Amino acid sequence: MLLRCCHNLTRLGCLNTQRHQVAPAVALCAVRLWSSSEGQRSYQRAHGPSWRHALAGLLAGTGAVLAYGLHHHKAEQADAIKVQTIEKTSGLPVFTQEEVTSHRSLEDGVWVTYRGAVYDITDFVAMHPGGDKILLAAGGDLEPFWALYAVHNQEHVLEILSEYKVGVLSAEDLKKQQTVKSSDPYSSDPKRHPVLRINSQKPFNAEPPPELLTDSYITPSAIFFKRNHLPVPQVDPASYRLHVEGLPGGVLTLSLEELKTRFPKHTITATLQCAGNRRSEMNQVKQVKGLNWGIAAISNATWSGARLRDVLLAAGYGPDVAKWACHVQFEGLDKDVTGTTYGSSIPLNKAVNEEGDVLLAYEMNGEDLPADHGYPVRVLVPGTVGARNVKWLGKIIVSAEESNSHWQQNDYKGFSPGTDWDTVDFKSAPAIQELPIQSAITTPADGAVVNRSGEEVTVKGYAWSGGGREVVRVDVSLDGGKTWQVAQLRSTEKEQAPKPSPPPGRAWAWKLWELTAPLPPEAQELEIVCKAVDNSYNMQPDTVPPIWNLRGVLSNAWHRVKVNIREDESEE
Amino acid sequence: MLLRCCHNLTRLGCLNTQRHQVAPAVALCAVRLWSSSEGQRSYQRAHGPSWRHALAGLLAGTGAVLAYGLHHHKAEQADAIKVQTIEKTSGLPVFTQEEVTSHRSLEDGVWVTYRGAVYDITDFVAMHPGGDKILLAAGGDLEPFWALYAVHNQEHVLEILSEYKVGVLSAEDLKKQQTVKSSDPYSSDPKRHPVLRINSQKPFNAEPPPELLTDSYITPSAIFFKRNHLPVPQVDPASYRLHVEGLPGGVLTLSLEELKTRFPKHTITATLQCAGNRRSEMNQVKQVKGLNWGIAAISNATWSGARLRDVLLAAGYGPDVAKWACHVQFEGLDKDVTGTTYGSSIPLNKAVNEEGDVLLAYEMNGEDLPADHGYPVRVLVPGTVGARNVKWLGKIIVSAEESNSHWQQNDYKGFSPGTDWDTVDFKSAPAIQELPIQSAITTPADGAVVNRSGEEVTVKGYAWSGGGREVVRVDVSLDGGKTWQVAQLRSTEKEQAPKPSPPPGRAWAWKLWELTAPLPPEAQELEIVCKAVDNSYNMQPDTVPPIWNLRGVLSNAWHRVKVNIREDESEE
Repeated sequence: MLLRCCHNLTRLGCLNTQRHQVAPAVALCAVRLWSSSEGQRSYQRAHGPSWRHALAGLLAGTGAVLAYGLHHHKAEQADAIKVQTIEKTSGLPVFTQEEVTSHRSLEDGVWVTYRGAVYDITDFVAMHPGGDKILLAAGGDLEPFWALYAVHNQEHVLEILSEYKVGVLSAEDLKKQQTVKSSDPYSSDPKRHPVLRINSQKPFNAEPPPELLTDSYITPSAIFFKRNHLPVPQVDPASYRLHVEGLPGGVLTLSLEELKTRFPKHTITATLQCAGNRRSEMNQVKQVKGLNWGIAAISNATWSGARLRDVLLAAGYGPDVAKWACHVQFEGLDKDVTGTTYGSSIPLNKAVNEEGDVLLAYEMNGEDLPADHGYPVRVLVPGTVGARNVKWLGKIIVSAEESNSHWQQNDYKGFSPGTDWDTVDFKSAPAIQELPIQSAITTPADGAVVNRSGEEVTVKGYAWSGGGREVVRVDVSLDGGKTWQVAQLRSTEKEQAPKPSPPPGRAWAWKLWELTAPLPPEAQELEIVCKAVDNSYNMQPDTVPPIWNLRGVLSNAWHRVKVNIREDESEE
Repeated sequence: MLLRCCHNLTRLGCLNTQRHQVAPAVALCAVRLWSSSEGQRSYQRAHGPSWRHALAGLLAGTGAVLAYGLHHHKAEQADAIKVQTIEKTSGLPVFTQEEVTSHRSLEDGVWVTYRGAVYDITDFVAMHPGGDKILLAAGGDLEPFWALYAVHNQEHVLEILSEYKVGVLSAEDLKKQQTVKSSDPYSSDPKRHPVLRINSQKPFNAEPPPELLTDSYITPSAIFFKRNHLPVPQVDPASYRLHVEGLPGGVLTLSLEELKTRFPKHTITATLQCAGNRRSEMNQVKQVKGLNWGIAAISNATWSGARLRDVLLAAGYGPDVAKWACHVQFEGLDKDVTGTTYGSSIPLNKAVNEEGDVLLAYEMNGEDLPADHGYPVRVLVPGTVGARNVKWLGKIIVSAEESNSHWQQNDYKGFSPGTDWDTVDFKSAPAIQELPIQSAITTPADGAVVNRSGEEVTVKGYAWSGGGREVVRVDVSLDGGKTWQVAQLRSTEKEQAPKPSPPPGRAWAWKLWELTAPLPPEAQELEIVCKAVDNSYNMQPDTVPPIWNLRGVLSNAWHRVKVNIREDESEE
């Protein structure tokens, strides 16, 4: 029933986001928040204003990068003026905005302002968890950046900042700054399904509850995991244009209508997975940087659109281009306050190969793309990490070089467990493209109780591998990995007939699996473990610590859940 | 110096195998045999007739599938007559060859003869470790089969056989049988390099010593691992013909000269690995069936030849064929006594894709293919398990079906550790094509001693992944996997400049790696471990038991060696 509800919401969602209307039923829904603390999961049901307290609890509890960030502008402005007043009387030097603006590089020093105070953060740049993106704020005010990356709304961030205070901003410049302060860039984000477990509100990042995830082979769009890097842009389908650059024919510009009518429509079923899926398991080993995803930053949908290959051919791609070009870059229409858009790239051969199946998708599960999934057009790069599947696609550039974006160059890469933030060289690792073999148990949940009288336990989950490699087997253990049984796989909805295997290298969609096994007679607890095998016979690593990496990506060790067996009361 | 020697031998080998001459120096060389017993490796240097005893020791020690099988025909014939005499006097029924021949199916019973006795092995067929290949001998004599598969030359095999004895062969038929007994089909096998460690003499299977393997980036042909399934066929290059079947143009027949002149010559550097590489580590967990390979059933060479794609296009391949064809089958010219040739197949898209780089190779390391590597023509399927790289290629068949050969259907497949010979269903697993990520430590050897005064330890090895996935990192641990350091990779000979990465999906060659690290101050022993990562970020599994499988293939857990640190004597 819940899934039917999801399905209806999907359709409502599409309408709503385009028309800026909110179904009251959705708006009033309670939101479930999800916390992971010392291996136990607790659900907190929070209503309206109490969300904020629930989230504060989450942040304090796990140190995870989670935030909701309700902005109360009036209160903030009052605070700022108070700060300013205090500073004025503290005898610290007063700087003009012009003086601050002259410090915008490591050579000249990096100065920023925040709530009327001036900070020289030159020495902090190298330590910034978000990398050199901090330089975008150099010479200006931090506030609009912190509004985008709400992770900064934590007390200890302000404490760190205070160590770098060098003065205050002149009263005149502060007044100017406050009058141009932008409104919340996330205010036009679409409404979301209340069942989603939110990892970050701004930008919006959320995953479905695991037990819902594998109830359907095709994930309803409303509960498909959401992974946004920036505010959701408002795109008018009538004026939308897609630009294709870097080819001999000059720039090809396509309207949405042209994209839909000039090129054949292709449909594929493909699973997308965030590089950070299952990051929370790495956090349990040692703190990493990134959203604290559970096991559900992965979902499966059907996608329809024009083939990227066809569009590139229409734009002038040919054998001569292949001699110098190596990459196809994508730019989204989502941007930060400086106008920097989300971007990434994929290898040229994936883009142009007939068997690559890369789509410029305008439909998801048979309907227009929802706003959170890239309306009106996104790239769908099957078999490839979510981060390259650029949403709200604005520009395609055929190039000799990879995308120069932060997300291609200094993020979404894997490192050795021995590499830390002092020693990491982002140039030394390739940008993640194809993902490795993955599987997880969605039911039973960790800590669940199974009755002895049931005599059996049923274990369910998903399995998927990148690069179009088909999952060929899932092994399940009830004893922590000592003995193994083979699960049943399926690649259709439960009631549908099995489908034949896709051609080699084009298995883009996950398999759901299930095993029903007798309860071991003596056991009081089961440690259920799963591991999958793809048709290149890649296996998952046994344990998390040896694959731990400072960004917490590529977390694909065997998944383990512990369940207790309850002995039934005697029948006397 | 040894490698220079190898190189010279390579060239000598080419000449010799074509001309049926033997360099006396090679013929007189001692052969090193290799045994693995309870984790310790011992080398036995055996000369001339004493080989046999050394090998008997090996077989008794490990139960491994190893054999040399010197045939002393006269002694055997005398034995057979003695057996026959005993049987005649024992009162067992006497059968004619015609009666035996009438029992050649499970329905009619399966009878065989061996040294004059008649056996009804109907009940044994299902238990035969070699599968239903035993039926090839139904109604006939076992001896020629056992000469091919010398694993049978063990006492306990005779004991098993004796349980099925039902009578003796008539004296007249026994005499006939002995007069047509074929000579040793392996008698024309080429001479091999004495440094090779022999896992099986007939068919010949051998690997180089690990410490030699990674001394050169390109493995000299003479020490490149040898994996034959049958006797090496004698092929006359002048009368050699390659047949290409299954395409609209009818059969295309090419002479060696035509293959070399009608099609452009392509050269690639590619690593081949046997599916059973590192099987000995699985044997240490629980006995598996197969040759007891160490870590060196993998080697790297340059290969030149015509592209399979070009030959298929010339033979009529086109888009219409792609509508019904899915596989390209290969048949070797090596055959067993029944005329069954070695065979396998690969997916069509690997064969016809421009980026698949499949060659019909006629050169290895710049010279004609050596006899052991498929003279005059073999298939070279880069990124794919050795078993599909058919040697002494006789026929290519484009087909809707996979090869029906034993090696495609009932061998070279992976299974769950919980699957045993009673439960295995070979149809349930895909034929191995691309291999998973692999790495191993070639130096120091397990059990080596490192001097404390050296202050450092240098670890070397190889790393490779199937499917053209480039190795991007090798992690090395000196403490059993608790902490990790990143090794230096190289993809050229030591003295050569580094090369840029190949295009994505076309990294066919291994990387050699090296790490020099300080000796941990307190340690008395090091447990050195390596694990590699490919550019799909596939990792090796941590341990062997969870990937154990009844055929002992795909053994790619972390490789571990233990070395002792010797505290130096005081300088007093």
